[in-house]
Amino acid sequence: MNETIKTLLNHRSIREFKNTKLTNEQVNCIIQSAQQASTSSYMMAYTIIGVTDPQIKAALAEVSGQSYVKNNGHLLVFCADLHRQTHTASQEMFNQMIENLENSEHFLVSAIDAALAAQNAAIAAESMGLGICYLGSLRNDLARVDELLSLPQHVIPLFGMAVGVPAHQPERKPRLPKSAVYFENKYEAHDDIVQAFDDKIASYYQTRSENSRKDTWTAQMHRRFSKTIRMDVTDLVQKKGFNKR
Amino acid sequence: MNETIKTLLNHRSIREFKNTKLTNEQVNCIIQSAQQASTSSYMMAYTIIGVTDPQIKAALAEVSGQSYVKNNGHLLVFCADLHRQTHTASQEMFNQMIENLENSEHFLVSAIDAALAAQNAAIAAESMGLGICYLGSLRNDLARVDELLSLPQHVIPLFGMAVGVPAHQPERKPRLPKSAVYFENKYEAHDDIVQAFDDKIASYYQTRSENSRKDTWTAQMHRRFSKTIRMDVTDLVQKKGFNKR
Repeated sequence: MNETIKTLLNHRSIREFKNTKLTNEQVNCIIQSAQQASTSSYMMAYTIIGVTDPQIKAALAEVSGQSYVKNNGHLLVFCADLHRQTHTASQEMFNQMIENLENSEHFLVSAIDAALAAQNAAIAAESMGLGICYLGSLRNDLARVDELLSLPQHVIPLFGMAVGVPAHQPERKPRLPKSAVYFENKYEAHDDIVQAFDDKIASYYQTRSENSRKDTWTAQMHRRFSKTIRMDVTDLVQKKGFNKR
Repeated sequence: MNETIKTLLNHRSIREFKNTKLTNEQVNCIIQSAQQASTSSYMMAYTIIGVTDPQIKAALAEVSGQSYVKNNGHLLVFCADLHRQTHTASQEMFNQMIENLENSEHFLVSAIDAALAAQNAAIAAESMGLGICYLGSLRNDLARVDELLSLPQHVIPLFGMAVGVPAHQPERKPRLPKSAVYFENKYEAHDDIVQAFDDKIASYYQTRSENSRKDTWTAQMHRRFSKTIRMDVTDLVQKKGFNKR
């Protein structure tokens, strides 16, 4: 097993960081790695905002409800960006582009482009001994995040990433078995596999060193979806010119 | 610079593969790496289909119009999956879950989860000396791909990935400069930076070893968006129970 695979398999989300800022060299290396990820039809349809202003960090931490949004070595916000593609377009050209730009195909393209770049950033950071945590929690109030980062039309925040020197070492969180997420040639029923995983994960939750509790994966998922959350994501996304048709 | 960063920075999409199938060990390592990627609220909202059936591969190659969808060492299709989360839910629970499950927040969650897993798969493959190419082209006919892979409600194909032993070595494709995609604290105007990149990329296109042509990035983007493509993605996505509200 090579060093890269070891890094990939060793991932765990880090939620407590030492009070050490990333160096410019580390940030540059992370961003350069992010940029070399694959991109759909060369669109590079994302922007990364590095947040260093303490007031903006505090405001983002308030949106997320997570202390590690404020306390970390560096904070990144990954945005879908279809603004750059209209650069220097005449009004006539822009009018032609907009129908296509604002469809759900390009909402997908920009979200996927941003995610591929983000995962390269995560792997680069982890390969240097840093820890990371994705912050979907910024979508608790996407309009506020959008405003805080002064994003123009056709740019929206998608998620953040806290990076830094780990100050704890949580257990590696179990994943569904391969046979539950990987199939050959066609989708297959796998309820019994998920059931067996629930038994396994119940024991993980009871015995792990931090936040031990009685739970299963299926119960979590049922709770997660049983009340609506973030129904306002749609409004902000469409208002900013994404996913409109 | 460590080996992992070298792998990340060395990425180029490979579109010609030697006639060598991946071993089971290689496939297992790639899928295991994919699975350890971060996942939003532990949802693991994706499924990966490995396509080995020659008839299905041929049909997918027809959808994409790309020969390397048929000719590769292994073919993966990454799907958004919100079906698994409703596993064993009673009808009453399912009815409660559906409002939330079908919103655009969870469309985003599943697309991002799938993309993070995919990028781990890509990096794992590249670290082993294999090459990869993402296949957004499967969205040329998403309904056909959906049917070919027998995907149930709340599962949709997003993109494919061809993996294999590289049979060519294209140049590394230039990226926008860091100053065009990375900003501190707020979004900044960067038209002049994109303009300078257009000059650079014009020279890349004229001198590269394969498919040389006269072009700029901005001109490509204007062409890309000036006519509509894949407007039917929305229909299939919504029909399958995603992105409905």
